[in-house]
Amino acid sequence: MKKMLLLYVVVIGTLMAYLYMVYFREDNGGLSENAGLHGKTDERYVMVNFLTGIDYWKNSLKGFEDAAEALGVSVEYRGSTQYDVQEEVMVLEQVIARSPSGIAVSAINSEALNAAINKAVEAGIPVVMFDSDAPDSDAYSFLGTNNYNAGVTAAREMAELTGGQGEVGIISLPNQLNHQERTRGFSDTLAKEFPKLRLVGIEDGKGDQLVTEQKSLELMERYPGLTGIFVTEANGGVGAGNAVLQAEKIDKVHIISFDTDKGTLDMVKSGTISATLAQGTWNMGYWSLMHLFHLHNELAEPMPDWRSSDVPPLPTYVDTGITVVTESNVDQFYAK
Amino acid sequence: MKKMLLLYVVVIGTLMAYLYMVYFREDNGGLSENAGLHGKTDERYVMVNFLTGIDYWKNSLKGFEDAAEALGVSVEYRGSTQYDVQEEVMVLEQVIARSPSGIAVSAINSEALNAAINKAVEAGIPVVMFDSDAPDSDAYSFLGTNNYNAGVTAAREMAELTGGQGEVGIISLPNQLNHQERTRGFSDTLAKEFPKLRLVGIEDGKGDQLVTEQKSLELMERYPGLTGIFVTEANGGVGAGNAVLQAEKIDKVHIISFDTDKGTLDMVKSGTISATLAQGTWNMGYWSLMHLFHLHNELAEPMPDWRSSDVPPLPTYVDTGITVVTESNVDQFYAK
Repeated sequence: MKKMLLLYVVVIGTLMAYLYMVYFREDNGGLSENAGLHGKTDERYVMVNFLTGIDYWKNSLKGFEDAAEALGVSVEYRGSTQYDVQEEVMVLEQVIARSPSGIAVSAINSEALNAAINKAVEAGIPVVMFDSDAPDSDAYSFLGTNNYNAGVTAAREMAELTGGQGEVGIISLPNQLNHQERTRGFSDTLAKEFPKLRLVGIEDGKGDQLVTEQKSLELMERYPGLTGIFVTEANGGVGAGNAVLQAEKIDKVHIISFDTDKGTLDMVKSGTISATLAQGTWNMGYWSLMHLFHLHNELAEPMPDWRSSDVPPLPTYVDTGITVVTESNVDQFYAK
Repeated sequence: MKKMLLLYVVVIGTLMAYLYMVYFREDNGGLSENAGLHGKTDERYVMVNFLTGIDYWKNSLKGFEDAAEALGVSVEYRGSTQYDVQEEVMVLEQVIARSPSGIAVSAINSEALNAAINKAVEAGIPVVMFDSDAPDSDAYSFLGTNNYNAGVTAAREMAELTGGQGEVGIISLPNQLNHQERTRGFSDTLAKEFPKLRLVGIEDGKGDQLVTEQKSLELMERYPGLTGIFVTEANGGVGAGNAVLQAEKIDKVHIISFDTDKGTLDMVKSGTISATLAQGTWNMGYWSLMHLFHLHNELAEPMPDWRSSDVPPLPTYVDTGITVVTESNVDQFYAK
């Protein structure tokens, strides 16, 4: 009987010790829960873009997902499968109708989505833009590449490759704002900093590999002293590379391309393309979600009711940067 | 004896149920702890600037503190009390010697702090710049106003105030980069968008209220058709306001000033100053700490070992925006 009582006391004692520990740990847990940024389980953020299937978006989606994981919220990925303005508008309208916690939009066109974006903002749904802006919309911020600066970087790299001498051409998409800016940054910088590196032609590569190859061949024929070609968009790089291979001018004509498609990276690795410019796509996605999270949870600039204020609650523009990819660092840029 | 055994079974059963619950809750707790951004208690971030006593810094410090509170880390505020380059360098060196988790620096001078900043980065201490950049240093990002764009905004506001007609002057600090950019944004925009609003003079107000008052009086005398003055720095606004009061030209000459000192806000409220430009200072501090936290905890762009990589781990530039403050929204800008 005495033994039983002793056992009984030990068991009760253990239980009480456990209760104390649980209480103690809960207290700590509570503190650390308050002192952290994390969302509620019903927070749902949506990324909306166009040409959803292309490789280019993978990194920004990864950034969006990484931020969501860090904050304990969920994300969704929607967009138009085609390069179709109306389809993206429709998808965005459907997303808005389901009242998500926030939407990050990459605009297929700088104007066409404004009405839908403004409708979301009016309904109290935070919207930020990434990669391609809609500058006249009511979206709270834009996160993407400063394309003018990317052109400046390309020009300085070209000067280094060519010794700042000779004639260079640009192959671009002259009707798209991003590409106009890249072209302008490049040509302004040549004029200001490298007067001996003359810009002899700006061609329309139509965002197409074969057209860019043809235009590159024409440029090399017309200007036998050509020392460089700057291709402002992703599909053309390999085309320009093929042209230079075909003309057997690898050592004479330096190509600078844009983005990090596998074909482009392969040509950087083999030395056919001298350099390509990588955009900070992971950062676009990651910080887009951070911005939306801060808006949704009213952690942004502490103005009373930022929704009805004209004070920008967030940084208005985040420049996600550019990296020059050459043979020496190309291995870091292959998709993992 | 049987009764005791029953009691014993009940107690053991309760204990096991408890153990199960604790395990279950720990599992949940573990998840929610993983799913949040929060620092360790020993994380300590330092903000370093100059003229530490002035009101201008209050909002960026508040942003820095708000982010630290959200993340559960601690902050410190250091800097030179005087407008003294050597003092800020010395303070920064002292801060580095104590190996903080990260440092946000506002540079008194775009060059003088480079060596100290680079030393910190080499030692593995993350550094970001806010408000005033050191563009040639190894700091990972810059968070501040786009001063050229602020000048553009001022020009458009001036055109609205004056009906886009007449003669305007600028009072600036012609030797400082920030003020050169504001001036350039203003004058470029007049030339491009408002050819009937002519820029007649750019004066040096020396960052001083009385000098700016004198220069404003001179401008109004020399150009009787003057319709506006853009003052690019904080101290001059009240000086220009006093000049216009003295000359009894309140209805003729519109003043646009910079920043939100109490004196400036009072003159906006009374209608002497037509508008002033508020910088996104809270956002500078808040997002500086976010950047440092991401660097210290290696949450930034997932490149293997970003410290030795040439890929920018963070967005390289964050434009914290500008708000036009007029009579209608001035009340939001008084310090709380």
